[in-house]
Amino acid sequence: MNTFECIEKRYSYRGKYSNELIPKEDLIKILEAGLNAPSGCNKQTTSLICVDDKEILDKLYSVIVPKTGNIAPAMICVLTERINAYRDKCFAIQDYSAAIENMLLAITDLGYASCWVEGHITDDDRICDKMASILNVPSNYDLVCYLPVGKPIETTKKVNKKAFEERAWFNGYKK
Amino acid sequence: MNTFECIEKRYSYRGKYSNELIPKEDLIKILEAGLNAPSGCNKQTTSLICVDDKEILDKLYSVIVPKTGNIAPAMICVLTERINAYRDKCFAIQDYSAAIENMLLAITDLGYASCWVEGHITDDDRICDKMASILNVPSNYDLVCYLPVGKPIETTKKVNKKAFEERAWFNGYKK
Repeated sequence: MNTFECIEKRYSYRGKYSNELIPKEDLIKILEAGLNAPSGCNKQTTSLICVDDKEILDKLYSVIVPKTGNIAPAMICVLTERINAYRDKCFAIQDYSAAIENMLLAITDLGYASCWVEGHITDDDRICDKMASILNVPSNYDLVCYLPVGKPIETTKKVNKKAFEERAWFNGYKK
Repeated sequence: MNTFECIEKRYSYRGKYSNELIPKEDLIKILEAGLNAPSGCNKQTTSLICVDDKEILDKLYSVIVPKTGNIAPAMICVLTERINAYRDKCFAIQDYSAAIENMLLAITDLGYASCWVEGHITDDDRICDKMASILNVPSNYDLVCYLPVGKPIETTKKVNKKAFEERAWFNGYKK
């Protein structure tokens, strides 16, 4: 798929997924796309765990309470290390967000769907920590987001966005 | 360009840029790619100002002291609004980082080069505030990053990254 077509086509899918297993080579391509994102001072603070083992997936979904979204045949968990990059500045959020966007595009390009799930699992009840524990993630990493990955079997609508003129201007603020 | 080829090809360019002006339609395509990125709860916290007016560019580069990188014929300034999305959580950093990654891919696809400049302008001396003032940006926005955009005229190396196995695993942490 063409880059611009893919960027335009990506959307947050909240419908049901097919049970169809995802070939490992597709999952690897998606992970590689994530790792190819830039990171502040090349600190590479983002790491990834892809889960396609049914038993482990079931354990992960069992701690995502209340449930959000639908169960997909694979899930990519995004880990971050809070390492300072430039003086006392840490760009871990920027780093993993760029990696996530690359993965969402890769997922779209390969004909799968996904949705960036972050706030629900990093909230006060810290579902993310329960997920990290299931995956044996050491304490120097935070699990901050997961992306379900699967073939969409429903047609859902893209969200509406403000007009270009409301958010982008040339040579100065113009709103 | 194919999405995966573009993701693979993108890199942080720190060489010199051609003076060649960039067609407005290319700049609009890049901005649109940025605005097409997802945002937490669709809050659309990211706005963009593209500068291709020589006089305004000169003013902006005059406050970027010490200088970082080389002068390009266009610059995209990234603005963010710190709006809460989910309960008391604000995803503004995630939002603008996904938008920046989309723009870096769009820039790559169109044959231009760029580099994500953030830490240098948001540091204690707040170069970003001086840039925002030149662009008449109201105080409810923070200018957090700029992307130079131009044709690269030097060949520079991509940074080295850790091996896949060091940063990505299947079904559990494996390092």
